[in-house]
Amino acid sequence: MSAVELVTIGTELLLGETVDTNGAWLARRLAGAGVRVVRRVSVGDDAEAIRDAVATALERTGRVICTGGLGPTGDDITRPVVADLLGRPLDVDTEALERMRERFRRRGLEMADRNRRQAQVPRGAEVLPNSHGTAPGLLLEAGADRWVVLLPGVPHEMRAIVDEELLPRLRVRVPDLGPGIRSRMLRTTGIAESTLAERVADIVSDAAPLTVAFLPSFAGTDIRVTSWGELDDVAAEAAVDALVGALRRRVGDHAYAVGETDLAEVVAKRMTDAGLTLALAESCTGGLLGKRLTDVPGASLFLAGGVVAYSNHVKQAVLRVPADVLARDGAVSEASACAMAAGARRALDADAALAITGIAGPDGGTAEKPVGTVWIAAALGERTETRRFLFPGSRDEVRQRSAQAALEALLRMLTAEVA
Amino acid sequence: MSAVELVTIGTELLLGETVDTNGAWLARRLAGAGVRVVRRVSVGDDAEAIRDAVATALERTGRVICTGGLGPTGDDITRPVVADLLGRPLDVDTEALERMRERFRRRGLEMADRNRRQAQVPRGAEVLPNSHGTAPGLLLEAGADRWVVLLPGVPHEMRAIVDEELLPRLRVRVPDLGPGIRSRMLRTTGIAESTLAERVADIVSDAAPLTVAFLPSFAGTDIRVTSWGELDDVAAEAAVDALVGALRRRVGDHAYAVGETDLAEVVAKRMTDAGLTLALAESCTGGLLGKRLTDVPGASLFLAGGVVAYSNHVKQAVLRVPADVLARDGAVSEASACAMAAGARRALDADAALAITGIAGPDGGTAEKPVGTVWIAAALGERTETRRFLFPGSRDEVRQRSAQAALEALLRMLTAEVA
Repeated sequence: MSAVELVTIGTELLLGETVDTNGAWLARRLAGAGVRVVRRVSVGDDAEAIRDAVATALERTGRVICTGGLGPTGDDITRPVVADLLGRPLDVDTEALERMRERFRRRGLEMADRNRRQAQVPRGAEVLPNSHGTAPGLLLEAGADRWVVLLPGVPHEMRAIVDEELLPRLRVRVPDLGPGIRSRMLRTTGIAESTLAERVADIVSDAAPLTVAFLPSFAGTDIRVTSWGELDDVAAEAAVDALVGALRRRVGDHAYAVGETDLAEVVAKRMTDAGLTLALAESCTGGLLGKRLTDVPGASLFLAGGVVAYSNHVKQAVLRVPADVLARDGAVSEASACAMAAGARRALDADAALAITGIAGPDGGTAEKPVGTVWIAAALGERTETRRFLFPGSRDEVRQRSAQAALEALLRMLTAEVA
Repeated sequence: MSAVELVTIGTELLLGETVDTNGAWLARRLAGAGVRVVRRVSVGDDAEAIRDAVATALERTGRVICTGGLGPTGDDITRPVVADLLGRPLDVDTEALERMRERFRRRGLEMADRNRRQAQVPRGAEVLPNSHGTAPGLLLEAGADRWVVLLPGVPHEMRAIVDEELLPRLRVRVPDLGPGIRSRMLRTTGIAESTLAERVADIVSDAAPLTVAFLPSFAGTDIRVTSWGELDDVAAEAAVDALVGALRRRVGDHAYAVGETDLAEVVAKRMTDAGLTLALAESCTGGLLGKRLTDVPGASLFLAGGVVAYSNHVKQAVLRVPADVLARDGAVSEASACAMAAGARRALDADAALAITGIAGPDGGTAEKPVGTVWIAAALGERTETRRFLFPGSRDEVRQRSAQAALEALLRMLTAEVA
């Protein structure tokens, strides 16, 4: 695979005020196109440092992509520094200038004089038009298969130029462009990473040349399958698909999606397709489960609503949890979770209900019910299923895990319903 | 100010699978201690690349901090590569080994053999104990005021070693340690960035040698005041405090906190101090407002709960929004917002209420009520205040801005109550 170096420019990167998300995005995008980033350097808005970083990268690897320092202010010096390094004078590009003027006109603004410098182009450079902002990207030849690309640091402008202008040119220009890295994610929840790894161990050990990685988080464990360029693009697609399919069959119900899809989206789609409505009763999650489900556009098609029953008074007054259940078993108990689900379903007149009650911490734990104790109830049709969890981690983690477990509980009931 | 270079090590950084948050955190932490990062290089788990990056940085700047590559697997080669570069053999440090064994014992686990390599120490290196994991940090002298520090890449381990072990040593070791960068944030909400900038323009123009930056986000505009090291630490603290105070007085009610404090925390504290209880009625935010308030530990001291009234049926059945209000004005209207607040207060028996009803998009907008239209009602005592917003941005942004505006509305009522 072909190699490239990144130089990200901006004093804010060295002060830590900005996290270098451009570097990560570019690396992923280039890897997908068969170009591998072999080194990334961040320097400040300092002529000597920029010059040195670009010159070294050009000498070492021959292909350099820079981001940042193309703005209209005095800090922005990438353009003249690189032009000088390559011995090119700067000319004003009338086409680029006109595009910039037009951009300001469309927004009813006069272009400030200081924007003119953004239309300066090192002689002989190829202009990569910027459909989302003023500063165009630039591609400068520096010998046989040696070049420097300059891109603006504003993320959405940089991304547009890369996708619309740079990648198509690289496909033509880079002679040893290899097959891209291909990777796909299988998302699982409700199964421990070690159990999962054991269950698919034989599939993983036969995966070469593909690799399989386990990525645990509060939401479950994602399994990432990657082809690193040993296979051509068509073969890689097929091999990745086949391996993800084999893993999915083996993992069973715990696998809920392929790709970036969130569990809430899967549940939303299943509920909508089934024409069922849902009511929520949240205690320790305080609205997080509702927030997750309403992140999905169109949630009104299945979500009636919910009750955040933080106080026992609300559990009794709105959800009709019996006083003797609260007195005998406490608010964090199987009986309370069941009564909350039943009460939400009744009060909101819904087909299904999810209830969460637990101790998210940092305080409120006891020897019998330590922090992390959470009861979840899912009700659908005639059935109500309950489960007790003891989640590790911070208040935030316990709440996130609780919402995820509730979604999984509902998905399993929906799946059982169909089966 | 003293200069240092960072070398962050890990193939995942070059593939873009991990965003380099360690680099940004280290840069901020070091800047606060008077050490300025002048360059950051990321390389993969490749001996030659690591050796070259560390050697070049050592030659150029003389002080190098590396993160990553200290783990127990075969990929992790930072320790032997740097030891070899500096001509030091690797010895097993019995104290470090014992600490690691003890760590495993406490968790009831046997230490795997491959962890032994994490106790290898280049001869003469100073061990920086890791209170959060197995791999200790290492500090290697490489001549007069020249040194290399190796830190693990796991963020919470790296951070603990820096704060507990590295910074105290740097304060002794670095002779030209300058005054640190000092910065403080004034958080504002409910006022446009341009209006804010105009209101404080004269304060800003007299701020030198401090600088003032405006950082707009969905939550409002933060104003950051920074001393860049021209003043000594004591003078900088005093100057930053004075400037933040002057800005706060000028901004007035829109300024809700100094530092990292979230608006939900401020509201939670004010409600708890006042001994008031709160009920929520959320439509388009779907639970997000409840989630924000219950992110704060101890929310049960003031939050009774809430109703996520996503469907009109729930608005009527639980919140008692009159059918004719919904028919005449629609669910997204001033009258509905008022009725939702009143209904939540009644149903949940609370002192105060916040209601949000709006169109978060992407669909559901009309010419009269476009996407982003949101009505907010805040009720406290005898008063109910309502306000209509037209928020820009995506579904997520509209929802985030709505929750923030609701919190601001309540805070303003609480402040007016006291005044």
